Amino acid sequence: MTTFLNATDIAQIVGRLGLGRFWPRLVDYLRQDFERWEAFHKSPRFARHSPVGVIELMPTSDGDSFAFKYVNGHPGNARLGLQTVVGFGALADIATGYPLLLADMTLATALRTAAISALAARHLARPDSRTMALIGLGAQSEFQASAFQSVLGIDRLRVFDIDEEATDKFERNMAGSPLSIVRCGDARSAAAGADIVTTITADKKFATILTEDMIAPGTHINAVGGDCPGKTELARALLLRSDIYVEYAPQTRIEGEIQQLDADHPVTELHDVVAGRRPGRVAPDSITIFDSVGFAIEDFSVLRLLRDLAHETGIGRKIELIAEPENPKDLFSLLRPFEAQARRDERRRAPAPLAN
Amino acid sequence: MTTFLNATDIAQIVGRLGLGRFWPRLVDYLRQDFERWEAFHKSPRFARHSPVGVIELMPTSDGDSFAFKYVNGHPGNARLGLQTVVGFGALADIATGYPLLLADMTLATALRTAAISALAARHLARPDSRTMALIGLGAQSEFQASAFQSVLGIDRLRVFDIDEEATDKFERNMAGSPLSIVRCGDARSAAAGADIVTTITADKKFATILTEDMIAPGTHINAVGGDCPGKTELARALLLRSDIYVEYAPQTRIEGEIQQLDADHPVTELHDVVAGRRPGRVAPDSITIFDSVGFAIEDFSVLRLLRDLAHETGIGRKIELIAEPENPKDLFSLLRPFEAQARRDERRRAPAPLAN
Repeated sequence: MTTFLNATDIAQIVGRLGLGRFWPRLVDYLRQDFERWEAFHKSPRFARHSPVGVIELMPTSDGDSFAFKYVNGHPGNARLGLQTVVGFGALADIATGYPLLLADMTLATALRTAAISALAARHLARPDSRTMALIGLGAQSEFQASAFQSVLGIDRLRVFDIDEEATDKFERNMAGSPLSIVRCGDARSAAAGADIVTTITADKKFATILTEDMIAPGTHINAVGGDCPGKTELARALLLRSDIYVEYAPQTRIEGEIQQLDADHPVTELHDVVAGRRPGRVAPDSITIFDSVGFAIEDFSVLRLLRDLAHETGIGRKIELIAEPENPKDLFSLLRPFEAQARRDERRRAPAPLAN
Repeated sequence: MTTFLNATDIAQIVGRLGLGRFWPRLVDYLRQDFERWEAFHKSPRFARHSPVGVIELMPTSDGDSFAFKYVNGHPGNARLGLQTVVGFGALADIATGYPLLLADMTLATALRTAAISALAARHLARPDSRTMALIGLGAQSEFQASAFQSVLGIDRLRVFDIDEEATDKFERNMAGSPLSIVRCGDARSAAAGADIVTTITADKKFATILTEDMIAPGTHINAVGGDCPGKTELARALLLRSDIYVEYAPQTRIEGEIQQLDADHPVTELHDVVAGRRPGRVAPDSITIFDSVGFAIEDFSVLRLLRDLAHETGIGRKIELIAEPENPKDLFSLLRPFEAQARRDERRRAPAPLAN
């Protein structure tokens, strides 16, 4: 039987630990997997584009486990009252090919996206960072706020969204957290005095949320919103004067902020920093950018953690995702009980033979 | 919510219709999809090979729906008491990216494999065919027997397997069917006098189950077992004197019987026959071969049928495969009830403050 975790199960697992214990655990799983980057098979994602969106399959594997995520991107879904991005994924055993875990990846993707930002910031933000600007208060914003509070010790937020309702929702969701939150009137005002600036705006086009003059020396920019071809958030001049860190350069050059730069513009892959092969922040007054687009190994890490936490907490359910006949060579036996019933039904439906 | 069908649900759906009504329905869905072959996006499968097996993702889509199948192949699983091939799949809406159906594909693959053989035989076997030889009585054998009885009107089987237990299992599963079954001592004897010869042996190597002298003029050969590089069942000379039909030539030249032939050996794609663009059997004494390896569009067809039958019969269950927050922009709301509980737990665990 395969373990299945729906979003409610995942929320319950997170609640059982509390976010304060969940975030460091997820960041640690990501750290472990980024440290053994070379152990992973990295494949281009499979993408099926249509005029209204994209559906993708993202596979990856280490020597023991195979993982994939199904994920879509449909900007027009918002008008239909649907989510623009949903997903689910599975983790399977390389040794037998049997699926071990099936899980919602809508919530899990939101969790891993915030956690990889926190892991990057641990290496790239100034250690004394306490104030974060959060620009764009959509579905990902609270996850970023919570992860940075838990992992980085951020205690002050300066927030902005062009939509007041999004800001209200954000404040509602953060009620009870130890974060002090300042509503700002625009992105410039939010960024002023922030040690870390997180951008997670949703516009699917080349936008300029941050320009060079808005960013003080020593700032770390966590650029999460620009994540597909044609979608960026940072001014080119800002990129040019910053140290840029990415997940996987070949993918980020197509999808990330750096699609605005020359193909050979130097960037550092985060796994090299995590593993100690390359430096993180080099000077207190550097501007660092984590140009986050999301990578399959992050899905692998969160699936691996969810598998372990399902086991530890007993949360989740077993489903018969694949047929499990008693005799593995006798698949047809599964049909027999129902087929016998069907024959009886057929006889009942047939007219009784005439006596003669 | 997404509809989920496990193997028991699928067996129950098949039972509700009865195999006699299920097979023509599935063959008809396959026919419809093969007739509109050009409407499908055909992608190479994604394969992750390891020393002990392979895990694959097989995606395909038409303009409305996207489907994929997860499937493995682990010959050594038999020694562990596990199935060598298991699978599951999903059907999603291209317009929104939302998954509509998740289903076991172990049983569903067995069903579609037999149904595509029956569809091919309807165009390639002599119309007066009544006797089928069945060589190899593993997990797929009963499906082939049942589909050919239902769709082609086969009423006599000549069966052989090197394993007596497999033959016993086959006879047990066929008890109550209108087929008369003759146990044969070897493949040659099974093939003697058969109008159709179906080979579904499991050896993962170049084997020679059928040679030219065993096959009478006018026979149709349904070659199902040879389905991956290095695995074949038919003698090369037999291939050379037969008319060969395949699902999708680029894939079959790698995986099918015709991997033994030159890369430009003429073959006919089945969809061209189904759509009337190319002839099926051309003469009563031709030898025809359907060199079946399995193709993603067949998985699409069976998923499409299962979606419709789940709707018609009410069988199956809804699962929350993807998170469904009340407000699609408020994913974090899913965590709030559990997070509030976690905070209360934390306070309870903390020592009570001293009164002063």
